[in-house]
Amino acid sequence: MKKILRMGMVGGTMEAFIGEVHRKSAALDGNFALVCGAFSSKPEKSKETGKALGLSPDRVYNTFAEMIETESTLPEDQRMEVVSIVTPNHVHFEPAKMALENGFHVIIDKPLAFSLEEAKELKRVVEQTGNILALTHTYTGYPMIKEAKHMIVTGKLGKIRKIYVEYPQGWLSTALEKEGNKQASWRTDPNRSGAGGAIGDIGTHAANLAEYVSGLKISLICADVDTVVEGRKLDDDAAALLKFDNGASGVLMATQIAAGEENDLKLRVYGELGGVEWTHSQPNSLIYKTLDKPVQILRAGTGYLSELARKNTRLPAGHPEGYIEAFANIYNCFHKAVCDAHKGELKPLKVYDFPDVYDGVRGMAFVKKMLESNRSTDKWTEFTI
Amino acid sequence: MKKILRMGMVGGTMEAFIGEVHRKSAALDGNFALVCGAFSSKPEKSKETGKALGLSPDRVYNTFAEMIETESTLPEDQRMEVVSIVTPNHVHFEPAKMALENGFHVIIDKPLAFSLEEAKELKRVVEQTGNILALTHTYTGYPMIKEAKHMIVTGKLGKIRKIYVEYPQGWLSTALEKEGNKQASWRTDPNRSGAGGAIGDIGTHAANLAEYVSGLKISLICADVDTVVEGRKLDDDAAALLKFDNGASGVLMATQIAAGEENDLKLRVYGELGGVEWTHSQPNSLIYKTLDKPVQILRAGTGYLSELARKNTRLPAGHPEGYIEAFANIYNCFHKAVCDAHKGELKPLKVYDFPDVYDGVRGMAFVKKMLESNRSTDKWTEFTI
Amino acid sequence: MKKILRMGMVGGTMEAFIGEVHRKSAALDGNFALVCGAFSSKPEKSKETGKALGLSPDRVYNTFAEMIETESTLPEDQRMEVVSIVTPNHVHFEPAKMALENGFHVIIDKPLAFSLEEAKELKRVVEQTGNILALTHTYTGYPMIKEAKHMIVTGKLGKIRKIYVEYPQGWLSTALEKEGNKQASWRTDPNRSGAGGAIGDIGTHAANLAEYVSGLKISLICADVDTVVEGRKLDDDAAALLKFDNGASGVLMATQIAAGEENDLKLRVYGELGGVEWTHSQPNSLIYKTLDKPVQILRAGTGYLSELARKNTRLPAGHPEGYIEAFANIYNCFHKAVCDAHKGELKPLKVYDFPDVYDGVRGMAFVKKMLESNRSTDKWTEFTI
Amino acid sequence: MKKILRMGMVGGTMEAFIGEVHRKSAALDGNFALVCGAFSSKPEKSKETGKALGLSPDRVYNTFAEMIETESTLPEDQRMEVVSIVTPNHVHFEPAKMALENGFHVIIDKPLAFSLEEAKELKRVVEQTGNILALTHTYTGYPMIKEAKHMIVTGKLGKIRKIYVEYPQGWLSTALEKEGNKQASWRTDPNRSGAGGAIGDIGTHAANLAEYVSGLKISLICADVDTVVEGRKLDDDAAALLKFDNGASGVLMATQIAAGEENDLKLRVYGELGGVEWTHSQPNSLIYKTLDKPVQILRAGTGYLSELARKNTRLPAGHPEGYIEAFANIYNCFHKAVCDAHKGELKPLKVYDFPDVYDGVRGMAFVKKMLESNRSTDKWTEFTI
Repeated sequence: MKKILRMGMVGGTMEAFIGEVHRKSAALDGNFALVCGAFSSKPEKSKETGKALGLSPDRVYNTFAEMIETESTLPEDQRMEVVSIVTPNHVHFEPAKMALENGFHVIIDKPLAFSLEEAKELKRVVEQTGNILALTHTYTGYPMIKEAKHMIVTGKLGKIRKIYVEYPQGWLSTALEKEGNKQASWRTDPNRSGAGGAIGDIGTHAANLAEYVSGLKISLICADVDTVVEGRKLDDDAAALLKFDNGASGVLMATQIAAGEENDLKLRVYGELGGVEWTHSQPNSLIYKTLDKPVQILRAGTGYLSELARKNTRLPAGHPEGYIEAFANIYNCFHKAVCDAHKGELKPLKVYDFPDVYDGVRGMAFVKKMLESNRSTDKWTEFTI
Repeated sequence: MKKILRMGMVGGTMEAFIGEVHRKSAALDGNFALVCGAFSSKPEKSKETGKALGLSPDRVYNTFAEMIETESTLPEDQRMEVVSIVTPNHVHFEPAKMALENGFHVIIDKPLAFSLEEAKELKRVVEQTGNILALTHTYTGYPMIKEAKHMIVTGKLGKIRKIYVEYPQGWLSTALEKEGNKQASWRTDPNRSGAGGAIGDIGTHAANLAEYVSGLKISLICADVDTVVEGRKLDDDAAALLKFDNGASGVLMATQIAAGEENDLKLRVYGELGGVEWTHSQPNSLIYKTLDKPVQILRAGTGYLSELARKNTRLPAGHPEGYIEAFANIYNCFHKAVCDAHKGELKPLKVYDFPDVYDGVRGMAFVKKMLESNRSTDKWTEFTI
Repeated sequence: MKKILRMGMVGGTMEAFIGEVHRKSAALDGNFALVCGAFSSKPEKSKETGKALGLSPDRVYNTFAEMIETESTLPEDQRMEVVSIVTPNHVHFEPAKMALENGFHVIIDKPLAFSLEEAKELKRVVEQTGNILALTHTYTGYPMIKEAKHMIVTGKLGKIRKIYVEYPQGWLSTALEKEGNKQASWRTDPNRSGAGGAIGDIGTHAANLAEYVSGLKISLICADVDTVVEGRKLDDDAAALLKFDNGASGVLMATQIAAGEENDLKLRVYGELGGVEWTHSQPNSLIYKTLDKPVQILRAGTGYLSELARKNTRLPAGHPEGYIEAFANIYNCFHKAVCDAHKGELKPLKVYDFPDVYDGVRGMAFVKKMLESNRSTDKWTEFTI
Repeated sequence: MKKILRMGMVGGTMEAFIGEVHRKSAALDGNFALVCGAFSSKPEKSKETGKALGLSPDRVYNTFAEMIETESTLPEDQRMEVVSIVTPNHVHFEPAKMALENGFHVIIDKPLAFSLEEAKELKRVVEQTGNILALTHTYTGYPMIKEAKHMIVTGKLGKIRKIYVEYPQGWLSTALEKEGNKQASWRTDPNRSGAGGAIGDIGTHAANLAEYVSGLKISLICADVDTVVEGRKLDDDAAALLKFDNGASGVLMATQIAAGEENDLKLRVYGELGGVEWTHSQPNSLIYKTLDKPVQILRAGTGYLSELARKNTRLPAGHPEGYIEAFANIYNCFHKAVCDAHKGELKPLKVYDFPDVYDGVRGMAFVKKMLESNRSTDKWTEFTI
């Protein structure tokens, strides 16, 4: 019998972007049922959201603390089992820590926390409680990203030599944060986002994707981080030269002032024998190039893909899956881990193939090191945690 | 307060393709809750599916008739409110008719029925009962298809002159139906699919899309319908010259033997002032060409799109939505109509913008006329119903 | 020692489009030297053109007859050896015939002639004189078209089942011919173009390309030929269902009223084992699809291509070649044949792989049969010559 | 009367890649006639090449010195007027200097010279003699690159903020130079190429293109230059963070070990108001993005382009032009300057819009500064000459 996990949510009013994404992703494959929430720091807004979602009013809470406390007292077969945290960065740490410490598993939007210190503390809590924390680095959920990873792991590209990863956006080309744009407002506010602007919001995605697919770790960074739009309080544009722990080099670009760009995260990894290229605007294709054969376009939903790609796909080839499906893949992997944990059969986390607290710590370290390198007149800054 | 509609399902065991699509689409936006089902003509399989879906065993039925009868006797606040029918074509008519006549609204996979006669009878039942029937012509659910329709309705292309619609697939290039492929098996079986093979399975999608976007009706058909793979019992390849009711001409291609093709439905509509092009492999883009300006790529999720496109989009530009999202758009439109009906405020059906029983009748007539034209030595066959 | 052939030209003033293309194509690889011309029926214009081209004034003639006569009297090592004919269709026959009969080889723009009768007469003259006539069906000169042909000839696609060829243009969406556009003017004038408008101008390219690549011949046509722009004297839009001599079916689309389209001739050929796709906007790629492997993109200039493709390529992969290079490939093949003829070593024409007088006759028959089919109420018209 | 310039060539045997490119480019538009050459340091090879090109044997020389000397003695209306130099880098300086000093105009392949010192000396000679030197930075010759430049100059993008330029190749992924590959051999040999490998061969193209299009100058470089393939004597992979003189930042990537990549030079420039993107694999398109409107695809050969783009185009939209055409555009601009010089009407060089000796000096400085930055532990190295 399929286990549908009861989920509570922290953050995610109706006008928030990412809260809806989490809800749809959790709902898509029928593995989670949203049973309660503390959707806003403003009780009225929380209630409205609960209503709009068709939740029972007594399961809509004023604060995350109230939610965690009250739910803990409900009968075991009714109370929430996992908590989804979709607040701005400065409200990640407290609810995550409290949920974990009260026996709930947590799935949380990236970046993991407001600072590297918070992130490390969450790591400690995860290790101490043994509860599960998943981090929604969406892009790692795409099936063709899985295929790329599989190809590299199985040696199809040979030793990796070069990685280009770029994440161009243009929506912050103007000072939207001064025009009442809610998304821009918290993302450019150091009190809510933390030390990183573009580097935290999208740079961490890029770095995580490069490391996930290649199986390598960034070891050196040489960064140029800028605030291009006048008066902005956080960075909105960054680029870095990278060295990886196997000696490969790379380039990372993350910008939010590339006027007209949408969200076209792109990864290219080259090895001795070939290269792969994936781009978010064509997520169901993976371009595979070799030294002397025709370019190949591998397509999601086909029979020739790896098991890893196939189990992250729902539809036959030619039926596009997108962002929510990739997101849902992370939810599904988290679901599997939680169900195993419930049965006392939890395997090593890497088996479940979702971004975890360790990825989250690396993400926060990435933000810190990018800024450190930017301030430095030395070319290379070591990526240590 | 949001109304979550209780849904029963006919057909759709776990190994079926389209059943899962319906379930995910219904679940995505939280507008439907699957509460019961008669998933297979084999009781054991139905039970298994119910279990895999986490349904209460007493709401898993052996037959659709049992489901409709039993659910009718449940308290009003518990019994299903809508029925989703996802069986092969020969099991569309009976459950749809029975559901409608017992007061349930119906959402049903295309083509509407096994034959034009069945389709017309369903139309009669819909008109008689006043209940709602939605038909899942998926592709009309894509936001950029909505945008194309909007552009044409508002005259941006001028008078429409030429329509090309093509639906190339290659998966039936070999006699898969003889190798135990379940999807191929019923789709090439005249006893389960009806008179049309490719023309029913995908040709109806193409014809429906062309008519939906252009706002025109096909008036004349000149068809060449073939069975290319030896021993196959239904057509697997077709093409037709078309005339539309405003004098425009067109070409329709639908094939399942274009080796290597996936599912790249493509529509091009040209008017006096410009043309639009949409292709399923890039569903979040609409290409717009004019007589003397640069080509434009309109993108889903942007602020410059029409209300019609925007309300069928969930995510900001650059976050790909796909097949399930398009499918869910039809479910959502159906949801809105049913909710209005529950409140006694049902508006004219066209307001809700979903394919309905009249589209279904046209689809079945399309199959019949394609075959009629194919047999005829006359060039043109009138598309009458 | 390389033989540079001395060339004369009929037609092709500076403002003509195709004359310049012929001159650049002939010049590109250094195989031809333009030594004389009769560029216009207006002597003044002919002189101007000769001057603009840096020709010796005494080799610029008032009429093609004068050119052919005078050149014939020059010393053998000075007089032109080949004639390039780039006039509108109604001035193809006379100069071609006269040149051939006076011992000159001819390269001529398509369509071959004004009518099928003229074309047949030219065929007779070619056969009688033994001189060479090449027809510039440009698109057959592209290296990736050669590769497609090679793949089909060598059985890589298996038996051919389906051919789609389309040639969408939009430049005649309005009545340009009434606004003094020279190109539009003669192309829509039955006295200069002959019986076919779009079908002659671009339809013949499409038909020729389909036959060339597939190695098949069109045997049946079911055509819909229209004049969409009011007041136009020739067709500007056409589509046809086709049958080929091996039983394959096809669709041909050729239109000049697809608003916003440039010149994107596209060919798709599907066999039992796979399909190939080529499109003029990406001429250096050939897409190759199979039943169960990743899509392949074959690229011009790579080492894995056939000899046939490679000898029609100048540059390594990634250095785009275009229209003039394809055109020049036809000139080069013609050059080889003429040089062999000069040495008395002419091989069977097919060895040289350029469109010849027989292709030209088929092209004119195509125009005639398209119109015949269009007028007929019968579905199928036999493509006989 | 059109002036056809008589051209001599240094280097460029039949098996050389770039010699043929120069010859075809010079021939394409009929502005140059190759009259003589010293094609190889081996007299036998030079003779063979001359023969293969159909040159008069007495105009085929054993050395460039012999050519320059002998041609200088020919009657003015016979002797060569310009010299095209297409040798490996170490044989650029001597023939260029000698030609200029003997009154010949020079067109020369890039990079300008073997070292910055040589380049500066050539600059001095150009300034002293007043003769013209053009440098074939091919990519600046593409019409859509011209359009991008025009858009930026006219302020369509606002102040430029960010430039990404990348030049990925994969052909040197293995030690081809040890397998007798002639192209690889000299390009990886410090005695023939100079101090730079990939940075000289393709990095200079990338830097030049970025500066040409943006109108900005690189002012700071932070480079990572590597030799990835073991045993190679020059760099084969490089990346750099850049600062431009208006404060914009940028990233430059140039690699020859991106396995499977062909030659897809790509430039993206973003300003306050929009961005443009051009890629060599689609050279006839320019993608233009703005803050809030649909993406536009500007196409070569259309009527809406700038004069600057149009005069570098030969064909109407939809007729692809490629590498040789772009190359020929540089030849044509050079032709115009030389003709004006002959008439004593030479205008300021920038009017003719071709890469000149100053660009060449910057290119050599680029190589030097990239290496200097690579060796430095400081983050930023000033780009001074």
